[in-house]
Amino acid sequence: MAKYALLLEYDGSTYSGWQIQANTKTIQGELEAALSAFANEKITTITAGRTDTGVHATHQVVHFSSLATRKIAGWIHGVNCKLPASIRVKDVLDVPDEFDARFSALSRTYHYYLMTRPVNSAIFNQHVGWYYQELDIEEMRLAASKLIGRHDFSSFRASGCQANTPIRELRNLKIETRGNMIRFALSANAFLHHMVRNIVGGLLYVGNGRLSVDEFEQIFIARDRKLAPPTFMPNGLYLVNVEYPSKMFAADTETWLFNI
Amino acid sequence: MAKYALLLEYDGSTYSGWQIQANTKTIQGELEAALSAFANEKITTITAGRTDTGVHATHQVVHFSSLATRKIAGWIHGVNCKLPASIRVKDVLDVPDEFDARFSALSRTYHYYLMTRPVNSAIFNQHVGWYYQELDIEEMRLAASKLIGRHDFSSFRASGCQANTPIRELRNLKIETRGNMIRFALSANAFLHHMVRNIVGGLLYVGNGRLSVDEFEQIFIARDRKLAPPTFMPNGLYLVNVEYPSKMFAADTETWLFNI
Repeated sequence: MAKYALLLEYDGSTYSGWQIQANTKTIQGELEAALSAFANEKITTITAGRTDTGVHATHQVVHFSSLATRKIAGWIHGVNCKLPASIRVKDVLDVPDEFDARFSALSRTYHYYLMTRPVNSAIFNQHVGWYYQELDIEEMRLAASKLIGRHDFSSFRASGCQANTPIRELRNLKIETRGNMIRFALSANAFLHHMVRNIVGGLLYVGNGRLSVDEFEQIFIARDRKLAPPTFMPNGLYLVNVEYPSKMFAADTETWLFNI
Repeated sequence: MAKYALLLEYDGSTYSGWQIQANTKTIQGELEAALSAFANEKITTITAGRTDTGVHATHQVVHFSSLATRKIAGWIHGVNCKLPASIRVKDVLDVPDEFDARFSALSRTYHYYLMTRPVNSAIFNQHVGWYYQELDIEEMRLAASKLIGRHDFSSFRASGCQANTPIRELRNLKIETRGNMIRFALSANAFLHHMVRNIVGGLLYVGNGRLSVDEFEQIFIARDRKLAPPTFMPNGLYLVNVEYPSKMFAADTETWLFNI
């Protein structure tokens, strides 16, 4: 029995999220079907981050075990032949038995791309978030800085979140712009359910002037989801890196997917 | 009766090209249905460039006439409400009676985005062309330079092309790279059917070493489509500008849609 880590990229727009479910198309469902068909045995997978409906990944890490003897290039190209074009295996590694894609991970990095333009993008409407007018980036950066560190993120936690604790350590939240595209880069030890989309939704209210930085901070401190602005659309959200104690797959978190 | 020019953006991946047809979804079909519903009268359109199945546009220009009295903002947002999300009206202008989106156009500019990577993009597989290995950009640039000017482009013309003449004036063919993305920028007075995709397909054969620059030039000079490499996939092709004698819609042909 050998253990493998797999680097996955996917377009989440036509899937009901990561987690396998009966009667609906999910990334895990498609991946396990392709792996099982290729290895000719039932294969189950564990992932670093269970993404929601409509959320994408350029760098999702998954592990699985198999009795099948296949070359690394075989796992990559053989499994890709059995996957839909919107899910691609980019790389595969042999890993030691103690490696766990979820529990070995030290941190995750997500990027959110938000386009501000009077009319939404016809071409990228499933791939970037959209707001119809410009936002005050400096105010958003000031508000974002309040979230850095180890905190109770209850105000940005989905009501159905099943995590044991609302405490997370947000290590980075950088807001950059290129033309009319804004990119939010967030790194944390782990994220609560809807945490990135809820933070982006909150920062949007600062950017459009509906909340002052002070009001945003008060909402954060109150640890009450009901006080915070609504969850922002999944369209612009990408899992772009998962960090492990030992060197795994190389990640490119600097290159922008879009300019527009 | 007033005449209008309309600036359109669309994702061509789910349409059978521009031109209206019975029993299949086309950009023109969707646009005319939306315009007619909004104006409450039958509206027909003329376009600057009839794009093929799977080809996109960030800057398509269309004209139409209407008896309906609507504000410009009404034309933009009212028609967008009736269009699918993959087609967006970005702007509308009042134009003089003599304006014709097709015959007044002095030139068209297309961009082709080609990603070179061992595995195709899961996220942008409908939006960029793909080749599995790196290409020799300098050789491709040399070959491209042979095409500049007023020439007979029969070697890069689809067999079904209905143009009166295979003579076109190619004013620009620039090949730029960013990371593993290549962008071909082509401007001409007008393009023959499949001309951009056939040129990209030909240059690909130079880039991967199947043709020398000299052989490429011989194929061009032979004016025989049967000698040239196959038509490349439509996925990475975008109409990005149409130039007219008088100032029309502002175009952005410098910004890259993708880095990746």
